[in-house]
Amino acid sequence: MQTGPASASAEARGQRLPTNPRKELVREQLIDIAARMFDSKGYTQTGMADIAREIGLGRSAVYHYFSSKEEILAALVEAEALKPSLHLQEIIDDETLSPTEKLRRGLIDGIVRRLSSGSRFLLFSRLETQIPDQLGSLYNRSRRQIYDFYVRCIRDGIAAGDFREVEPKVAAFAVIGMANWTSRWYSPNGPMTPEQIGEIIADIAIQGLRAPTNDIASARATIQSLRGQIDDLEKMLF
Amino acid sequence: MQTGPASASAEARGQRLPTNPRKELVREQLIDIAARMFDSKGYTQTGMADIAREIGLGRSAVYHYFSSKEEILAALVEAEALKPSLHLQEIIDDETLSPTEKLRRGLIDGIVRRLSSGSRFLLFSRLETQIPDQLGSLYNRSRRQIYDFYVRCIRDGIAAGDFREVEPKVAAFAVIGMANWTSRWYSPNGPMTPEQIGEIIADIAIQGLRAPTNDIASARATIQSLRGQIDDLEKMLF
Repeated sequence: MQTGPASASAEARGQRLPTNPRKELVREQLIDIAARMFDSKGYTQTGMADIAREIGLGRSAVYHYFSSKEEILAALVEAEALKPSLHLQEIIDDETLSPTEKLRRGLIDGIVRRLSSGSRFLLFSRLETQIPDQLGSLYNRSRRQIYDFYVRCIRDGIAAGDFREVEPKVAAFAVIGMANWTSRWYSPNGPMTPEQIGEIIADIAIQGLRAPTNDIASARATIQSLRGQIDDLEKMLF
Repeated sequence: MQTGPASASAEARGQRLPTNPRKELVREQLIDIAARMFDSKGYTQTGMADIAREIGLGRSAVYHYFSSKEEILAALVEAEALKPSLHLQEIIDDETLSPTEKLRRGLIDGIVRRLSSGSRFLLFSRLETQIPDQLGSLYNRSRRQIYDFYVRCIRDGIAAGDFREVEPKVAAFAVIGMANWTSRWYSPNGPMTPEQIGEIIADIAIQGLRAPTNDIASARATIQSLRGQIDDLEKMLF
């Protein structure tokens, strides 16, 4: 069995075993179908037998992939919350990137992932309230880490003088909101790729936070000094 | 009976009758409780009897306010989608406001309304998929008008030179996303009022869209001209 909180942490340590591509595909389909059923029928009302019937496999075939619906939900939490939070941690740890670049990269990667996962992210966000307690803590911890990433980028950006003095928590939620909302309106048939949408959203977010450039202040000082020099010139000549 | 699509349009024409404040309060409580039950049990699984039991009123008392659960859902659609869309229409029609001011006012008013409606907006947004067809068209029309408001403000702002050349549709969704997401994280016990949060979000949105000021271009022209004048001065004197 490849999933569940146990394998989630195995994966965090980079220990995921190579898998058969066809098996991987069926596994992903199972997750997608289960997510749709959890959303439409409710998590508690959906059984493994319903999922097997929907995908057109025997129950035993389904059990080959997942031993319970809890495990399917755990795979969803892993893909939609744990993995993204680990990826953002890597970005935070990259010392070659400025806070602005970290924010840009986090936003674009998040949007691309979300818009490439079909309706899964949207279904998952609606399932939120149905996640049972034992999985809920992993889910909440991952979400908290995603939030902390954005607060940290914004705080560091303010400290570096790149961003203006804005309340970092509200700003983080604003940025997360723009990014998460993409899965509510994106259509794979639309004119733009997930990457293009990610770039536009990241630009709006970063420009929305950017500090007025210091150039203005030094230009003002130069004008002041020019004025003094013209006064001096006048005194000398006339 | 005060609600339903029919009275919704009566209200749009400003014909809502004055009501008894206590009745109004019970009516609002009924809507809140029903929204919570539609969300947790599902709309189809919830009956008027369940709602009556939950609020601690007799069934006949509940029928005094609403003749069916469809009517309660219609009241929700009216409050959460139709009314806001009509309010934005008033802002669009106000010719004394610039596109930037329209955008700011629409955003702040929307956020304040949302954050002052308790958990209702959040519940309602999760109920979305359960709205039956006959109400769905009113709901979708209102949502479309809200989206059109933001696209229009951004387009007009670009045309006026206030906003930079950004894809108006993606930008509108970014702005709507930041605003809508507030109901996911706002707590009435937090340190900020809905108005303060609205102002911060509107600032981020507007600064995120703003065109580089024209002042830069005219300052550049002035510098160019100063340079010419100094050349002339030099020729005259030496």
